[in-house]
Amino acid sequence: MSLKKLFYPKTIAIVGASQNLDSIGGQPIKFLKKYNFQGTVMPVNPKYSEIAGLKCYPSVSSITEEIDVVLVSVAASRVLPIVKECVEKKAHFVVIFSSGFAEMGNHQGQQELIDAVAGTGTRILGPNNQGIVNFIDGIPAGFNPLLDAEVIPKGNIGIVAQSSGLGFAAIGFAIQQRLGISHIATVGNQADINIMELIQFMIEDEHTSIITCIVEGLKPSSNLPELAKLAKQKGKSLVFLKLGRTAVGKKASMSHSGSLAGDSDIFEAFCKQAGIISVKDMEDLIDVLIGLQGKKPGGDRVAVVTETGGSGILAADICEDFHIQTPRLTEETINSLNAILPDFASAQNPVDFTAHIFNQEDLFRNCLVEVVKDSNIDVLLFSFGPTRGKLAEKMADDIIEISKELNKSIFISWLTPEQPFFNKLREANVPLYPTPYRCIRALEHIVRQEIPVKAAEKKATADKKHGDAEVLSLTEYQTKKMLGEYGIAVLRGGLATSLEEAVNLGSQIDYPVVLKVMSPQIAHKTDAGLVILGIKNEQELTDNYNTILERAKKSFPTAAIEGVLVEKMVEKPVAEVILGIKYDITFGPVIIFGLGGIFVEVLGDVARRVLPLTREEALAMLASIKAYPLLNGYRGKPQGNLDALVDMILNLSRFAIEQQDNFKEMDINPVFVMPEGQGVICGDALLIPR
Amino acid sequence: MSLKKLFYPKTIAIVGASQNLDSIGGQPIKFLKKYNFQGTVMPVNPKYSEIAGLKCYPSVSSITEEIDVVLVSVAASRVLPIVKECVEKKAHFVVIFSSGFAEMGNHQGQQELIDAVAGTGTRILGPNNQGIVNFIDGIPAGFNPLLDAEVIPKGNIGIVAQSSGLGFAAIGFAIQQRLGISHIATVGNQADINIMELIQFMIEDEHTSIITCIVEGLKPSSNLPELAKLAKQKGKSLVFLKLGRTAVGKKASMSHSGSLAGDSDIFEAFCKQAGIISVKDMEDLIDVLIGLQGKKPGGDRVAVVTETGGSGILAADICEDFHIQTPRLTEETINSLNAILPDFASAQNPVDFTAHIFNQEDLFRNCLVEVVKDSNIDVLLFSFGPTRGKLAEKMADDIIEISKELNKSIFISWLTPEQPFFNKLREANVPLYPTPYRCIRALEHIVRQEIPVKAAEKKATADKKHGDAEVLSLTEYQTKKMLGEYGIAVLRGGLATSLEEAVNLGSQIDYPVVLKVMSPQIAHKTDAGLVILGIKNEQELTDNYNTILERAKKSFPTAAIEGVLVEKMVEKPVAEVILGIKYDITFGPVIIFGLGGIFVEVLGDVARRVLPLTREEALAMLASIKAYPLLNGYRGKPQGNLDALVDMILNLSRFAIEQQDNFKEMDINPVFVMPEGQGVICGDALLIPR
Repeated sequence: MSLKKLFYPKTIAIVGASQNLDSIGGQPIKFLKKYNFQGTVMPVNPKYSEIAGLKCYPSVSSITEEIDVVLVSVAASRVLPIVKECVEKKAHFVVIFSSGFAEMGNHQGQQELIDAVAGTGTRILGPNNQGIVNFIDGIPAGFNPLLDAEVIPKGNIGIVAQSSGLGFAAIGFAIQQRLGISHIATVGNQADINIMELIQFMIEDEHTSIITCIVEGLKPSSNLPELAKLAKQKGKSLVFLKLGRTAVGKKASMSHSGSLAGDSDIFEAFCKQAGIISVKDMEDLIDVLIGLQGKKPGGDRVAVVTETGGSGILAADICEDFHIQTPRLTEETINSLNAILPDFASAQNPVDFTAHIFNQEDLFRNCLVEVVKDSNIDVLLFSFGPTRGKLAEKMADDIIEISKELNKSIFISWLTPEQPFFNKLREANVPLYPTPYRCIRALEHIVRQEIPVKAAEKKATADKKHGDAEVLSLTEYQTKKMLGEYGIAVLRGGLATSLEEAVNLGSQIDYPVVLKVMSPQIAHKTDAGLVILGIKNEQELTDNYNTILERAKKSFPTAAIEGVLVEKMVEKPVAEVILGIKYDITFGPVIIFGLGGIFVEVLGDVARRVLPLTREEALAMLASIKAYPLLNGYRGKPQGNLDALVDMILNLSRFAIEQQDNFKEMDINPVFVMPEGQGVICGDALLIPR
Repeated sequence: MSLKKLFYPKTIAIVGASQNLDSIGGQPIKFLKKYNFQGTVMPVNPKYSEIAGLKCYPSVSSITEEIDVVLVSVAASRVLPIVKECVEKKAHFVVIFSSGFAEMGNHQGQQELIDAVAGTGTRILGPNNQGIVNFIDGIPAGFNPLLDAEVIPKGNIGIVAQSSGLGFAAIGFAIQQRLGISHIATVGNQADINIMELIQFMIEDEHTSIITCIVEGLKPSSNLPELAKLAKQKGKSLVFLKLGRTAVGKKASMSHSGSLAGDSDIFEAFCKQAGIISVKDMEDLIDVLIGLQGKKPGGDRVAVVTETGGSGILAADICEDFHIQTPRLTEETINSLNAILPDFASAQNPVDFTAHIFNQEDLFRNCLVEVVKDSNIDVLLFSFGPTRGKLAEKMADDIIEISKELNKSIFISWLTPEQPFFNKLREANVPLYPTPYRCIRALEHIVRQEIPVKAAEKKATADKKHGDAEVLSLTEYQTKKMLGEYGIAVLRGGLATSLEEAVNLGSQIDYPVVLKVMSPQIAHKTDAGLVILGIKNEQELTDNYNTILERAKKSFPTAAIEGVLVEKMVEKPVAEVILGIKYDITFGPVIIFGLGGIFVEVLGDVARRVLPLTREEALAMLASIKAYPLLNGYRGKPQGNLDALVDMILNLSRFAIEQQDNFKEMDINPVFVMPEGQGVICGDALLIPR
């Protein structure tokens, strides 16, 4: 059966009606009068013959008219007979405010209510809720002090709330922002009518175009996927604030898949797929509702427009945090702006109209007209500073005027407390926020509802290449010698300038060994095939010694070859890590730590510290990366020698501080972390001098 | 020289003083009068003999008194001679409002100013700034419309701002929150006096205990590390909003270390080390300033206290997002609360005082008294719903009363628009926020200033074990057969029930092969040594066949052995990935994808989707993980066969949908992703039936 009569009733009976119009049984009477409800209100209470000028009935049975909605506000123990009366009377809906059912463990009492209406034409909303309000026609069939205290504007936002408190809290914040509401339905225990039915009603309701749901959990086999599709078809937005995200999905699981997909992970993934906006906080929710009042963005290319440099930069920073694009303006736009603004010289985004706009009345508008035409841009994001007063009002008027015919989306952050003209912007459906963060967070939610981040962008970042050093001042051999002086363990080995020396080194340090060609002109040896691993005996060494030198001469005919580094090959390290140092002009030497290769480059799992460090801080630095468990006895693997790694970090710090005038950057990569008691060893080192 | 006389001047000259008190040269005169400045104000302008009742001087030279501060508001071209006059006059400080210097590319003009004061006793603030205001003594030596419009409360917050706009915007927001300000200094181009000197002055200033800095960049060799130490020694807080985070550190770099430590990464790392709070937005900044007015938390163990279930759960969710602990209360506290609140049955945190507190006047206070005593708790975080009116005010009064002697920290989120009694809380220095997110984000900043997340916690998470399947309904062999029917490629091979069969299989599929013992009673074969890899020939197969069966019988004497799975060993896959499916009671079958082992378990780099999927969505799912570049031709490695991987995802989806009644979870782990054109192969499969 349709829920139409629940939201649009003509007759409402109130069981447990009270002459105290502030009590739960009295508030609906008060509010129905206040909202000038055009239908019939029928208080039910055998104690009275009249309440607030309305005829009072002794019982539901005694009512002769057809009843659309019965509101029930009596003790839990008295609810069941009333429901039965309602069924007999063929009342369409019974809204049970009373608590004391499943939420308090009284599952039997709740089941009895369900059984009482099963198979009848009567349906229950609740128990344990605060009812339903239709703001469009002014039908408050619920209770909450907010309905008394405030005038709630009509609008396109429907609210379905499992927590009545949070549902009405949302309305409280919405009023401040002049957001209009169509309906609120608080659902309570969902004994019969459930959240999904209410959402569906609102999707189909002509007055509602944004449906906000505040829910704790979804019942098994909910039809949310179908509802999301229906909403999409009808061009309506669903915005969910889901509570209890962290309390679930933590039970031991039989497989990886089980443990990797907790309930709330799945919900988030589903929302992304289905185009549902999922928010995490009440303010986030309200901010999205504000954003949805404006024109929907056709893409995520944003022009940040400002009149004060600082707030423009702030907005650009936050756009990047949220992966929102701020592309260059077209040359055409730049040229037009340069013609208008004498000091506007660059194609930058943020677009700074500069303080010039304060000197000439139409300048802001004239600049704006140019920027809105730009074909690189989907969204105009104004990030204003604390500008207030008449000029600010004129700017707001210009924006409203331009927004009327604009097929682009506008968002505003205005870094000043509430101004009288702000309501003009709100009434013109121009989304307005107090700070860039709030503004851009909302924009991101709305943009991502339609446009996912592109895979291609991701690849581009990962493919970023490190520049090649053309000339090194120190080879790996020399660098390692220097590190050795600072107590940093390097691979056992030495430099051979002849095959004979190489063979001698091989037998001294014992096989397997590694060969590497040393030349100050060759920075990236591995890429050039000038590193040969796993040489097992003298014969292999002899063969490879010549091969590697020939290769070097062929690829780098002009490079000066210092010799061949023969080093002991490391077996079974617990992990390979990277340690690096960098000289920063503000903070001086800085140290970097992460797991080898992929971890730092692709996953960005890196720790950074300004030097010097204490031993404790060095240990905290190790523990701060995500991959730390891999060093620390992961899944039965041996524990890495973390003490030795801390020693190396401290030694490297000392090097970085004492030698700070002599280097720009240095990588020790890999550092082999051996099992507990076996130390850590520098495998390769590359120093970029200053 | 100390900056004391800049902030606490006795005489102020204003060059470019105007009779228009709203102009830049007029505002300081207006404000100094408005604030009732007790020293001498000396307008300088040859055109007038008097401005606003003050004697007006024709030039700086004509002033006979000692001048502490000269404010300069004339065109850039006229500034230099005035500065020279000030030097001659031995004026202590020249604050230059005028723009048109380095910020517009006029570096020479700025250098001339620097040269003019070098080695003299005179120092310059600016040019291109809005001056300085001492709110403690009411000395506004600057200009901004805000100084006209608002009454700014005195307090313990000092502001140093590079962007004057953002500095005064911060004051605008602070006023709303009744936060008191000691000084604001806007710094402009820092030709002479720089940000660090101003910060140092404020650290040493007795009226200032929180120093807020809004900066774009730090100059090389800033002494911020020393200043951070000084602030810590004096128990003062530094809060930075640093702009231009994303514009820097993107230049090509010679080494990994260089590219891994962009300027803003280093700044963030430094702040964490130095106990500086680094915020990203104006509201974040104000929220931290609110939090710093309260008692500092002694730890990060939070009791979330609520009167409405929903807002308590919301706060607990957000605490977990921010890694803030919400431990169990002690048994003692639980018992005391159970004695007071009839329906308070559990030791949960959030602590829900329930609607009972509305029925009895002292109940809230009585419950509160018990919770504050709890030894597991450092912070009381009240997450209230939209409760307003008299009762709400009483609750606020109770909190203020209790906070006075409390050695714990209190934070409040109150989900209702501004109420008259909110100012009582602010005046009592109880941090108050409109939503749990804002409240907890600020708490996290303040807590982490002192207490880092512990390494131990991190390990515990990673060590989390997956439960062992006691009984499987299907062995790997059977599961793979089923997958094969859905077009999912599995390793070539078969089940041997005798050595002879195994040898036959070996020669059919060609060496190297893998042996695995199949039994429905043994889920995790690798852990039990029942998988042998890399068998190269018939001899090795014969030896290992017997070994592996003996092992199985010894470890699992009662397990029914189905046989030994003989499979072709895969060589040189591009990557190993995990595909999983899970049946979710709300959304039905869900698919999970990530890179093998460490990536999903330690790094949590996983994609999840509710089924069904289109081909396009499957590809987007692949691209959505961070490690995606590893599949896509990373660093010259071959590209993985992504088309075939998408096929497998689609086949697995079909399996998951058609078989949804028959499984709870399934892992295919590893899936070998071969180079382009060579397909993808399921290496192992584990199905957990429903």
